[in-house]
Amino acid sequence: MRLMEIGQRARNAEPVLRTLSIDKKNRILEKVAAALTAQQQMILEANEADVENAKAAGMKAGLVDRLQLTKDRIAGMAEGLLQLVNLEDPIGEVISMKPRPNGLLIGQKRVPLGVIGIIYESRPNVTADAFGLCFKTGNVVILRGGSDAIHSNMAIVACIREALEDGGVPGDAIQLIEDTSRETAAAFMKLNPYVDVLIPRGGAGLIRTVVEQSTIPVIQTGTGNCHIYVDESADLEMAVNIVNNAKTQRIGVCNACESLVVHEAVVDQFMPILKRKLAEKNVEIRADERARQAEPDLACASEEDYGTEYLDYIISVKTVSGIDEAIAHINKYNTKHSEAIITKDYHNAQKFLNEIDAAAVYVNASTRFTDGFEFGYGAEIGISTQKLHARGPMGLQALTTTKFIIYGDGQIRE
Amino acid sequence: MRLMEIGQRARNAEPVLRTLSIDKKNRILEKVAAALTAQQQMILEANEADVENAKAAGMKAGLVDRLQLTKDRIAGMAEGLLQLVNLEDPIGEVISMKPRPNGLLIGQKRVPLGVIGIIYESRPNVTADAFGLCFKTGNVVILRGGSDAIHSNMAIVACIREALEDGGVPGDAIQLIEDTSRETAAAFMKLNPYVDVLIPRGGAGLIRTVVEQSTIPVIQTGTGNCHIYVDESADLEMAVNIVNNAKTQRIGVCNACESLVVHEAVVDQFMPILKRKLAEKNVEIRADERARQAEPDLACASEEDYGTEYLDYIISVKTVSGIDEAIAHINKYNTKHSEAIITKDYHNAQKFLNEIDAAAVYVNASTRFTDGFEFGYGAEIGISTQKLHARGPMGLQALTTTKFIIYGDGQIRE
Repeated sequence: MRLMEIGQRARNAEPVLRTLSIDKKNRILEKVAAALTAQQQMILEANEADVENAKAAGMKAGLVDRLQLTKDRIAGMAEGLLQLVNLEDPIGEVISMKPRPNGLLIGQKRVPLGVIGIIYESRPNVTADAFGLCFKTGNVVILRGGSDAIHSNMAIVACIREALEDGGVPGDAIQLIEDTSRETAAAFMKLNPYVDVLIPRGGAGLIRTVVEQSTIPVIQTGTGNCHIYVDESADLEMAVNIVNNAKTQRIGVCNACESLVVHEAVVDQFMPILKRKLAEKNVEIRADERARQAEPDLACASEEDYGTEYLDYIISVKTVSGIDEAIAHINKYNTKHSEAIITKDYHNAQKFLNEIDAAAVYVNASTRFTDGFEFGYGAEIGISTQKLHARGPMGLQALTTTKFIIYGDGQIRE
Repeated sequence: MRLMEIGQRARNAEPVLRTLSIDKKNRILEKVAAALTAQQQMILEANEADVENAKAAGMKAGLVDRLQLTKDRIAGMAEGLLQLVNLEDPIGEVISMKPRPNGLLIGQKRVPLGVIGIIYESRPNVTADAFGLCFKTGNVVILRGGSDAIHSNMAIVACIREALEDGGVPGDAIQLIEDTSRETAAAFMKLNPYVDVLIPRGGAGLIRTVVEQSTIPVIQTGTGNCHIYVDESADLEMAVNIVNNAKTQRIGVCNACESLVVHEAVVDQFMPILKRKLAEKNVEIRADERARQAEPDLACASEEDYGTEYLDYIISVKTVSGIDEAIAHINKYNTKHSEAIITKDYHNAQKFLNEIDAAAVYVNASTRFTDGFEFGYGAEIGISTQKLHARGPMGLQALTTTKFIIYGDGQIRE
């Protein structure tokens, strides 16, 4: 199907999606969850074709694992949809309705964004996940998944569409772009009249491409070069526990800690504790000269290290003379994701919260908490590292916009 | 100066701007307002050079008038800055701070966007206006005005920079791109690491260019093909007053009414009243066949008329069989700006508010109220017709983002 037709079908479905009741949306989510389970055999067979192709093409084992579906993973997809049923629907809420002096009553109502485009890589579970988040918020979704997962995605989308139509909702509430060529992806990124927002989900390369090429507004989720600053007054035991957690609890994620900033007054005392703790997980520490005075057998940190998101069992260490240097260093090297200070000092805690430029700034806690579920949203579309529209973990509300509704009784403008 | 250097200087000024107290920002705004008045002679001389060049190049009188500054217009620029002093500063407000079950206290704090780029056309008063809005919200601004106004803009910016530095704030809080070539404008639109958001202010052509070329997130302000629907139960006297106001109170603006949708049950009664009223201002009415049965000497409306933002003394009329057809017609042709229903019917009022897709939807009031001042914001950066970040009239809050601030006492993620 041509992109323009996909776009037109999405726009045609939009008014129906926009006005579905909360109850109806929840019943449909249950129906889709049941359909995924009922048709798991069909989905697994399609996925098997993708997996065979991927293996034949020499895909790495780790990536094949991300591509592979199992009964458990399909059950997980269905469970994800059912969890959305229990979440509060942000659509329709009217915020801040106030009268004006001329008697106009002006309010802002939460409404769906309209048509959301998602561009993602190989994981087929994103297909059901993205549909669920968009559908719960009354949005139409157009998906463009990776070519590796095309058979799986087609099977999942066919299953969802059937369940939607069975429930009296247009199947076009979800559409898959089956042509996975780069040219079609590039054209999709310029489908302005038909798509209200584009959300790329995947690695840094994919996100950069979308930001550079898209003429549709993009919500950018991104990389996290996250720091923890151990202040002069830090509880060093708390500090080492938090660093250990933020570095090693899960290494491949954007909210993992990649770099440590240590006050020079505590660096001699802290480095041996740190080294001992991180040795348990074989974390390589790359330190500056001052920190290596305390632990001479550590590797040297370069300028490049400070700008690197390792996503690995490696951490860099920078020694600073105080809170001002710590803040300047972090604001220079961070990717505006998550930053933490460990301190007992009231002034420094507030100063760090005020002056660090990032989506999430912590006092005395692990950066690993930057997550829609941990923040209590019950769902997550991603973690925005841009400043427009949404910043930090995005829950359902990030998939909404507002419209002004105005009640008058004949007012005209003088 | 090279663009990269301008960008770097903006980023260097950003931390200072971000942490200015409300009081300091207000005192500086007063200082800048006083400087504009004190240096009006210098600004008027620079403006005279622009005006002479424009006339020599054969610029139309209307455009020359927009370019021309006078003592009164400079006083107006200064007054605009002083009005900002009295507005509440949105920066620093913490919204929805809540504890999580694990004891983390998570809040969202309003902070500046950072560095804002403004691309605009010939009106030099935008220079001071854009500076004021950005400065009040702690943002650094990079301006790229039109070549016609370059001398005026340079004079105004020099005056503002001097006042800033006099007040102990970096002059780089405002920078002007003095090279007004298209190539430099195009490069500015891709200055991603240095600019957080780009706001084009000007005609449809400028906005389209920015949307198509920018890799920086854009806040799109746009055109308004606004409708008024006169329902079966409308108070026809109220209807004609509102239509007259929305069409003729100011014709060249985006919230003016361009098209009328009339219920067939009242079209015979309404058209003569409408024709009589709009004749006072010589408005041309272009009507469909059904409406012309009531007033046969009206011009015919074509499909093209329904999609046209006239910005002139012309209005189109479409007759419909009921609210559903009215909503479908409006959602097909509107530009998602401002739409109104005139009705006494409760159900239809609510249905219209729910189902029309636009930034502002009115019951029984003129579309001309879609405006930051009329909505009580005390200032306006523009009227957003996009759905991300801000929709409808944008006040100071549209120039802010949020960051999460999290107070912990040693929490780690399990």
